[in-house]
Amino acid sequence: MNGDGGTERGPAPRRTVMVRGHAVGRDFVLIAGPCAVESEAQTLAAARAVAAAGAHMLRGGAYKPRTSPHDFQGLGEAGLAILAKAREETGLAVVTEVLDPRDIDKVGRVADMFQVGSRSMRNYPLLKELGHVDRPVLLKRGMSATLDEWLAAADYILSGGNEDVVLCERGIRTFETATRNTLDLSAVPAVKALSPLPVIVDPSHGTGRADLVRPLSLAAVAAGADGLLIEVHRDPPRALSDNGQQIEPAAFARLAREVKALRAHLEGVAP
Amino acid sequence: MNGDGGTERGPAPRRTVMVRGHAVGRDFVLIAGPCAVESEAQTLAAARAVAAAGAHMLRGGAYKPRTSPHDFQGLGEAGLAILAKAREETGLAVVTEVLDPRDIDKVGRVADMFQVGSRSMRNYPLLKELGHVDRPVLLKRGMSATLDEWLAAADYILSGGNEDVVLCERGIRTFETATRNTLDLSAVPAVKALSPLPVIVDPSHGTGRADLVRPLSLAAVAAGADGLLIEVHRDPPRALSDNGQQIEPAAFARLAREVKALRAHLEGVAP
Amino acid sequence: MNGDGGTERGPAPRRTVMVRGHAVGRDFVLIAGPCAVESEAQTLAAARAVAAAGAHMLRGGAYKPRTSPHDFQGLGEAGLAILAKAREETGLAVVTEVLDPRDIDKVGRVADMFQVGSRSMRNYPLLKELGHVDRPVLLKRGMSATLDEWLAAADYILSGGNEDVVLCERGIRTFETATRNTLDLSAVPAVKALSPLPVIVDPSHGTGRADLVRPLSLAAVAAGADGLLIEVHRDPPRALSDNGQQIEPAAFARLAREVKALRAHLEGVAP
Amino acid sequence: MNGDGGTERGPAPRRTVMVRGHAVGRDFVLIAGPCAVESEAQTLAAARAVAAAGAHMLRGGAYKPRTSPHDFQGLGEAGLAILAKAREETGLAVVTEVLDPRDIDKVGRVADMFQVGSRSMRNYPLLKELGHVDRPVLLKRGMSATLDEWLAAADYILSGGNEDVVLCERGIRTFETATRNTLDLSAVPAVKALSPLPVIVDPSHGTGRADLVRPLSLAAVAAGADGLLIEVHRDPPRALSDNGQQIEPAAFARLAREVKALRAHLEGVAP
Repeated sequence: MNGDGGTERGPAPRRTVMVRGHAVGRDFVLIAGPCAVESEAQTLAAARAVAAAGAHMLRGGAYKPRTSPHDFQGLGEAGLAILAKAREETGLAVVTEVLDPRDIDKVGRVADMFQVGSRSMRNYPLLKELGHVDRPVLLKRGMSATLDEWLAAADYILSGGNEDVVLCERGIRTFETATRNTLDLSAVPAVKALSPLPVIVDPSHGTGRADLVRPLSLAAVAAGADGLLIEVHRDPPRALSDNGQQIEPAAFARLAREVKALRAHLEGVAP
Repeated sequence: MNGDGGTERGPAPRRTVMVRGHAVGRDFVLIAGPCAVESEAQTLAAARAVAAAGAHMLRGGAYKPRTSPHDFQGLGEAGLAILAKAREETGLAVVTEVLDPRDIDKVGRVADMFQVGSRSMRNYPLLKELGHVDRPVLLKRGMSATLDEWLAAADYILSGGNEDVVLCERGIRTFETATRNTLDLSAVPAVKALSPLPVIVDPSHGTGRADLVRPLSLAAVAAGADGLLIEVHRDPPRALSDNGQQIEPAAFARLAREVKALRAHLEGVAP
Repeated sequence: MNGDGGTERGPAPRRTVMVRGHAVGRDFVLIAGPCAVESEAQTLAAARAVAAAGAHMLRGGAYKPRTSPHDFQGLGEAGLAILAKAREETGLAVVTEVLDPRDIDKVGRVADMFQVGSRSMRNYPLLKELGHVDRPVLLKRGMSATLDEWLAAADYILSGGNEDVVLCERGIRTFETATRNTLDLSAVPAVKALSPLPVIVDPSHGTGRADLVRPLSLAAVAAGADGLLIEVHRDPPRALSDNGQQIEPAAFARLAREVKALRAHLEGVAP
Repeated sequence: MNGDGGTERGPAPRRTVMVRGHAVGRDFVLIAGPCAVESEAQTLAAARAVAAAGAHMLRGGAYKPRTSPHDFQGLGEAGLAILAKAREETGLAVVTEVLDPRDIDKVGRVADMFQVGSRSMRNYPLLKELGHVDRPVLLKRGMSATLDEWLAAADYILSGGNEDVVLCERGIRTFETATRNTLDLSAVPAVKALSPLPVIVDPSHGTGRADLVRPLSLAAVAAGADGLLIEVHRDPPRALSDNGQQIEPAAFARLAREVKALRAHLEGVAP
């Protein structure tokens, strides 16, 4: 919430965003969980697993922005209740998406941090409304947004009075089809040169491939990311959405250990 | 509203969308007017000019989606009142953008056709809501949307029960910087091969350059577009938005004549 | 070869490039023929058909730049001999690709205009060499080239002393997968605002779809193109390359008539 | 040249390419030096500095592919002689670009590894010729090449009999303008899943910004790259090409230490 002037990460002074006791921007954060809240059992299984592996926050969508109206649209309020229950049991902070400005109160009764998805980055009425809430906002980069446009979108929230914005790089749309998006890790240091906001990375959407989540997670950490947002599902092939990119709890646990060790290494040798 | 089965334009049967007496999809439509409603004088001047030149509908934004919160955001309700006045005086149908599902009633009291802009193409709560109104919707292609994603977005409206959707190609985001976007005219026949919906073209946003509006308008007509959406301002350099791409009334009048003549030529020689 | 100062098409004075008696840039040109020279019978059949339909030049590759080394690479010198025979019989000028600076003499013994393909637009040794030949060069836009880079590539030829360059827009690479490339028709007037060189359009590669060749050909003409380059094959499904985008002779003949009529219409009503 | 079957890096067995005693694909390699050979003094200064910092190979262009014919085109043979001298003095292997198949013999008298630049990735005559030389080839990814197209380009060399190909990711062309290209680090593990060839990364071209070279170098290492290709110039602002992206020798020396430490860390904790 308040900026601290660490200079080791780049030219702009860094801001710290507090989310249920976690200082994003100062302490590295691991946010993990299923793409969508599908059921209480599935969500609690994922929450317990990622908590045990050292995650700080639980992700999971109750309202899902889907390309087709015929795809699973999320459980809505029932999904929010499940997230609240998972928090109660695990102590994880809850990060969940809000799509509609009319849902802000409802989602805000559960979310410790609102998520604005890639498709909503240019939803200015939603951003304006989030400028007036007393809750942090995780703002994903639009799939065709330049860094300047992304920061201008953040400015809709900031200029409304809410300074607690965390940026999330999640891949941009390019001609390449081997990956779902092209994860732009240059964006991490490039945005930090322009803005004090913390920047985390979502390698799950950034690649769309479970087998690439590990190497790109480590790369994101090395590039200076302040955290990771990773999709974890107890049974990825049966997930109702994003079933090619979610990883299993055991893989997440190994990755969390590697990320922690890498962070420790980088902090020890930072120039 | 009801589909007619003309086969001359492509494999899918064509749908006709009625907008204040104009049969979009059957009769070619010219929609013109300023980017934004800036004042009554500016809007009425543009409306009179485009009506005199043969336009069927007036475009003009009262709610503007701007990249930065510090840019002009539109006149809001005052802008809607100006549009209503312009319609009263000129008889032009009004096409204006709605950004926020909470504004649908308000905008719907004036709009003969709602416009969903490129940045809102993935605003699913808005699209769902527009599936329940008894008013046509002009759905612009998202700047990074594939044809399939665009049609899936239309399906959010259609599957809600509103069959009156008009599609609008307005350029996609590419690496090219000589134009604001890359106008994808292949999209016109390619979409018509997949969908019965009318497809119009916006060469103003598609190129971002006033000097390219004329040739790309003619090209769009030749590619089979069902109409054009063109930005016209009485004093483009002083426009509060899009000032590089709006054309003057006299240029629009010349273009309208050329478009009409080209349409007549193409209908006469169609195989 | 010598520039004439017609101002009706845009701000830059126009240049006329003579190709075997055809004044490209002054008179509209139709260049048609198979993607690749596959056999004498196939090439002669296509040449006769396009000549009968009113084409001015025959296209056909003897040296083919293929993505994979395991794909058909062209007949080489035997292909050149077939093109020479087709010219002898039909009187069509021959446009054929040169890939390798070492082949310039060999290809130049047959080509009335050298073609530099999209993949070779940045092959500077080839371009430099073509700056010293006394034969026109058709320079296709690179699939990821901006207009500035394309014109800079042309400058490699022009600054070597060969002023006879014809530019060819053939689609750029974007995220869209419904078409093979995204045909950028804005490039036609945008390049003409910067350069006196003639600009033609290749809707076959630009779309990669036979069903889109007709509407995009008409659109290119309306956008001000100086000519069209169209792939025609007597039996497209059995073509050894590009078999989804070649059209049949009868379709080409109908299209040639439509293009001619459209040109006449546009010249009659040009402002 | 001979493959070893290490499985820790991905599904495909890995190949080792020997370059003047360095086993690329097995041992991590640092290739550094100026964008272009500008003079003996400048090249030797860079060579000494990068050798002292622990680089294994010297990069430097004698033949430069430049967008405009009016830009510095390289010193040609004089540049090759300078590179040979730098190798003699420092022991660094020489990696230098060949643009023209007619220059292969000449360049091959100096190069320990031929470089094929991004603009030449689709120069098939050049690739075919390099399939017949007994020297390794560093094949950069084309700026608009998919992974499949890149591997198909490598196949032109491999299928000619030369198995010593090292791939180099150097950024792809996207809509983003904050960086010169968008460095696609997902390509490193994604290519390794498809091919046994070593993959190195060029963060200098990948970002076009000296300030981003360090974080993206570390990220590339964490993503599993087999080496780095970094532009180093003793006086970047006065470089005759790429002057925004070259780093100073001291910055390179610090980075080389960090990279070495990171590699040691990652090898120690690899699962």
